[in-house]
Amino acid sequence: MSQPDAQPVSLPIRRARADQARQVADVLRHQIYEGAYDDGLPAEAELAAEFFVSRNTVREALAVLKNEGLIDRGTKVGTHVSARKYDHGLDALVGLKETFKDYGDVRNEVRAVQRLSAPPAVARKLGLEPGTQVVFIERLRYLADLPVSLDLTYLAPDIGEEVITHSLETNDIFSLIERVSGRKLGGASLALEAVSADPHSAATLQVPAGSALLMAERLTSLDDGRPVDLEYIRMRGDRITMRSNLIRSTP
Amino acid sequence: MSQPDAQPVSLPIRRARADQARQVADVLRHQIYEGAYDDGLPAEAELAAEFFVSRNTVREALAVLKNEGLIDRGTKVGTHVSARKYDHGLDALVGLKETFKDYGDVRNEVRAVQRLSAPPAVARKLGLEPGTQVVFIERLRYLADLPVSLDLTYLAPDIGEEVITHSLETNDIFSLIERVSGRKLGGASLALEAVSADPHSAATLQVPAGSALLMAERLTSLDDGRPVDLEYIRMRGDRITMRSNLIRSTP
Repeated sequence: MSQPDAQPVSLPIRRARADQARQVADVLRHQIYEGAYDDGLPAEAELAAEFFVSRNTVREALAVLKNEGLIDRGTKVGTHVSARKYDHGLDALVGLKETFKDYGDVRNEVRAVQRLSAPPAVARKLGLEPGTQVVFIERLRYLADLPVSLDLTYLAPDIGEEVITHSLETNDIFSLIERVSGRKLGGASLALEAVSADPHSAATLQVPAGSALLMAERLTSLDDGRPVDLEYIRMRGDRITMRSNLIRSTP
Repeated sequence: MSQPDAQPVSLPIRRARADQARQVADVLRHQIYEGAYDDGLPAEAELAAEFFVSRNTVREALAVLKNEGLIDRGTKVGTHVSARKYDHGLDALVGLKETFKDYGDVRNEVRAVQRLSAPPAVARKLGLEPGTQVVFIERLRYLADLPVSLDLTYLAPDIGEEVITHSLETNDIFSLIERVSGRKLGGASLALEAVSADPHSAATLQVPAGSALLMAERLTSLDDGRPVDLEYIRMRGDRITMRSNLIRSTP
């Protein structure tokens, strides 16, 4: 199926139904996220006409989305969206409570607050000597009554000691850092990936073991460049979409 | 475990071993990505000392990473990194070939090249009338001999007809778009999430069904603002890490 340079392509190429189904499922998935089908999905025949594919292909596409837990299907009631996803902006450095303020209340279940000796890797990232006592906080974060994120946080000692004198259940740590330091946050480096949930993390986030999670490592610095907050964040893949705008730099 | 405002916390709180193991696993995971253990991981006793935890906790942390396919363990040979991950920048808008130029050659297996009538959702995003003929391209992208990404691409007709006269096996579509349009890319909007691989996509990407994938929808525009390239991209979660730098905007 390759093309030499400057030769027109012979079209069309016949494709396996599973390939066509994926193609339809991908477009439908984002239609669902964007709220196009909040009152239910169109009938199979209608979708087949929209996508210029057979009803069997539509059925297979809907089966993919059903397996992901995104839709429910019933012979009498039709096809409905079963899981709402929430947008998390990647462009700006904002806490979950700020991010989700239009969706509902963020509440944190504080699972651990500890002083601990920083392992070398943690100390290095925070610019500290290995073994320095840092403050560790673990929070399970709920949007309304749904657990969406499990956050493990290491704070530089001076900042951490002040942060934990405030309520961690209702405040974003970002806003507490700015409050106790008297400085603004400067920026953060972020590494984002997809991992399968280990059984214990899955149980904590109330998803089946092996579910896809968005996992972030984020190191946040104050506006003077000092790194103060190292976080490991697991977000439910079925609930969170990260959004960003990219600019083309000179190639 | 909650704290009222301005009250010191009573520390420490005892934690379940699985919680401690996750804590250790998260730091080790990023050490592995960063190449700290390319010659093998330290012995259990050494890791236990570094992290100030028991050997049983270290063992449980390593089991988590082994289940993710990140490390191999053998009684005689010790613990080794089994999967290399590749960094994909989120900040700039660059193609995979440009992104991975330091890692090795990117080769594309072209699985489909078709003209097709744009479904309404695709047409809307590309600023076209529903039913307009667009160019659809499906590529399985290899880094060296490893499939890392499955990309479904819808191109505006004028751009697409020109793009497919060039070799799609060795060129990034981004560079082809700039070449045939005579314009620079302007920017893109990106939605990123974690999904479990459906069986067909898993087989194509050579991962077990249900594996975590990073899934992106990306709409790219020319520097005059016209959207020309809508892509649905599945990346292997065990191979790709997205990296970004975030700036704090005024809260």
